[in-house]
Amino acid sequence: MALVVQKFGGSSVADAASIKRVARRIVETKQAGNDVVVVVSAMGDTTDDLLDLAGQITDMAPAREMDILLTAGERISMALLAMAIHELGVKARSYTGQQAGLRTDTRYGKASITGVVPERVTRAIRDGQVAIVAGFQGVNELGDVTTLGRGGSDTTAVALAAALEADACEIYTDVDGMFSADPRIVPAARHVARLTYEETLELAAQGAKILHLRAVEFARRYKVPLHVRSSFSNKEGTWVTDTPVETKTEEEAMEDPIISGVAHDRSQGKITVIGVPDIPGTAARLFEVVSSADANIDMIVQNVSSAATGLTDISFTLPEADGPATLKAIEAAKDELKFEELRYDDQIGKLSLVGAGMRSHPGVSAKLFGALAAAGINIEMISTSEIRISVVTRAQDLDTAVRAVHTAFGLDAAETEAVVYGGTGR
Amino acid sequence: MALVVQKFGGSSVADAASIKRVARRIVETKQAGNDVVVVVSAMGDTTDDLLDLAGQITDMAPAREMDILLTAGERISMALLAMAIHELGVKARSYTGQQAGLRTDTRYGKASITGVVPERVTRAIRDGQVAIVAGFQGVNELGDVTTLGRGGSDTTAVALAAALEADACEIYTDVDGMFSADPRIVPAARHVARLTYEETLELAAQGAKILHLRAVEFARRYKVPLHVRSSFSNKEGTWVTDTPVETKTEEEAMEDPIISGVAHDRSQGKITVIGVPDIPGTAARLFEVVSSADANIDMIVQNVSSAATGLTDISFTLPEADGPATLKAIEAAKDELKFEELRYDDQIGKLSLVGAGMRSHPGVSAKLFGALAAAGINIEMISTSEIRISVVTRAQDLDTAVRAVHTAFGLDAAETEAVVYGGTGR
Repeated sequence: MALVVQKFGGSSVADAASIKRVARRIVETKQAGNDVVVVVSAMGDTTDDLLDLAGQITDMAPAREMDILLTAGERISMALLAMAIHELGVKARSYTGQQAGLRTDTRYGKASITGVVPERVTRAIRDGQVAIVAGFQGVNELGDVTTLGRGGSDTTAVALAAALEADACEIYTDVDGMFSADPRIVPAARHVARLTYEETLELAAQGAKILHLRAVEFARRYKVPLHVRSSFSNKEGTWVTDTPVETKTEEEAMEDPIISGVAHDRSQGKITVIGVPDIPGTAARLFEVVSSADANIDMIVQNVSSAATGLTDISFTLPEADGPATLKAIEAAKDELKFEELRYDDQIGKLSLVGAGMRSHPGVSAKLFGALAAAGINIEMISTSEIRISVVTRAQDLDTAVRAVHTAFGLDAAETEAVVYGGTGR
Repeated sequence: MALVVQKFGGSSVADAASIKRVARRIVETKQAGNDVVVVVSAMGDTTDDLLDLAGQITDMAPAREMDILLTAGERISMALLAMAIHELGVKARSYTGQQAGLRTDTRYGKASITGVVPERVTRAIRDGQVAIVAGFQGVNELGDVTTLGRGGSDTTAVALAAALEADACEIYTDVDGMFSADPRIVPAARHVARLTYEETLELAAQGAKILHLRAVEFARRYKVPLHVRSSFSNKEGTWVTDTPVETKTEEEAMEDPIISGVAHDRSQGKITVIGVPDIPGTAARLFEVVSSADANIDMIVQNVSSAATGLTDISFTLPEADGPATLKAIEAAKDELKFEELRYDDQIGKLSLVGAGMRSHPGVSAKLFGALAAAGINIEMISTSEIRISVVTRAQDLDTAVRAVHTAFGLDAAETEAVVYGGTGR
């Protein structure tokens, strides 16, 4: 008998019919002899509806009250899901984050989990119940409700799985797990059976939206085996563990490093600060200013400075949403930073090739750049980690770039299974 | 400085605009120098919407889960109300029933309050905050959420007012308090400035829907001064306390006993069991059967038995909703009860005249019956308490009966102020 934590997102419980479908899925797992703990998000548009209501009242809602408001969403979905399971003849009980022992710090709206004391969940399991737990929420030391911010429900599921020492944490989505590229862009995208935490982290950070970075980090730290799978099929999805895929023979590996996939991200913009004095401390001061605007910067490139002028250019990418505030902050520091010009470009795309197999294979970069050149695509920025290479291109070239790289690295599947599932890749 | 508990029902917080209006009202009270604790119901149709969702999932939802589901409603309204007050520049914090220390037994869906430990509310007041508390809900000894059933928010407000030793518990509605009759039926209905708990209990029990019986009982037990008033005006409403209105001189009182008002109820049905053996124990057994069907019976009349047959008829009234199940239960016991025929009549109306002033005034009944006779209305059943006389009439005669009695007892107002407020009387 295994203990399985299953997490269902908002689109899986968007209405009564979906909730009943998810309930049948849970009951199957339970009746197969497993102990089941379920983490559920708010139904479909509930959170947006609540945000809209708050917006009609005020533009500056106290964060504490906003968290109380938003946690109503999971309260509704978890109770309905428990009812639906009960209707199928299986005992089920729902628990709020507080009741499930999800303790957090006091940062309303983006709280961090400080501990999990799932006594009531453990008792429910022992009593043969399916325990339904509200995702995205916890309680702080004041006894107030907090929300965990983006990716909160995934994080709740992983944290509970860690605390309960679950055999697996299943993250349900609408596709059969993770693919070597977004099937909407690359119809030949290949299903990926296994990934390491590191590979998954890179994919999540580089724009693959199935798993949230934070949940993967939590899973890696506590060695929680993740299983990303479809709620519409019983196929094995993608397992994320700390065990790398068995490498091929050394000879094959030399020629053909193992690549997990190609991620892409269209949501970034690029700021270029032109004509900055190339003296020690300039970059540091620039990024202090950027950081004061709370921007989450990603890639940074500094050009070789001109010997004639002693000036250099610094470019960096950041989420488009952070663009305006960051530009404003840099502009305000113009006298101090002494730059000549400030440019903003939101028409960029980022492609990332991820795979533990590229660690010791310098040929990967050359192959990547070659594939892009053959497709006539210009590279604007490059950044690398041990298991990733990212390049920035024009936004309009991104789809072509992803397909070219996917083919060049031999990732195209023999049959295009992803298409069968409508592959949203999100 | 006074401590005021204000309760706003679902129609007062039906949408963002209403919530802002209520917030202004609360802020006025606070800025007038009072400490304010607010109890709020779920927004308008929220509870019905949630019940509908549950109905789409199952017909037999576990009561515990139903309570978790429904309490999402107040969570939303209280957070939005706190935001709206905050927007007006006044500090406010919302508290769930649990956070406000509303402890209940474990009867989900109809829990009774077992204690109130409002530490967090007290601290909020001391900190200059307006404390917003979710009505209708509490927490049981298992740490689970419970709902208080019908009239729950009124009861929450009174219980909190008692625990906090508040100077007044204001129950906000859409009319200026209680009237001598339903203004929809009697345009000349008079506003009642003061009532005793007993009078209010009789009125509430007899169909006046402004205050819930249970909340009035709670207020009487803990001597909480209630103030029923309109959220649309600043007029004094109806005060409910244990101090009777100053009686007139004895001579005047003899002629004109003080009557609080005329209540009416159209929601009952009448069951008549015909040809029951008039022997000891028959009635007892009949009402054991009725009670097993969970019917909430009201008036009971047993006719004088026929000397010829030794048989009698027993009639009783009960909520129409309880009719079918009760008839079924009696029919099933026919062999044992040995009655001849069973009749059901849902076309009845009940009129109740209430007033502490009638206690020692036998002339009241005669005057009541005379007024109905003069209006050509037949009386089908009569029941009395110390401060109330109720009669059953044909449903179609009820409005005429209420007007006739209202006029006969000199209750008609000189001017018809009730009409100004659209008087729903609910």
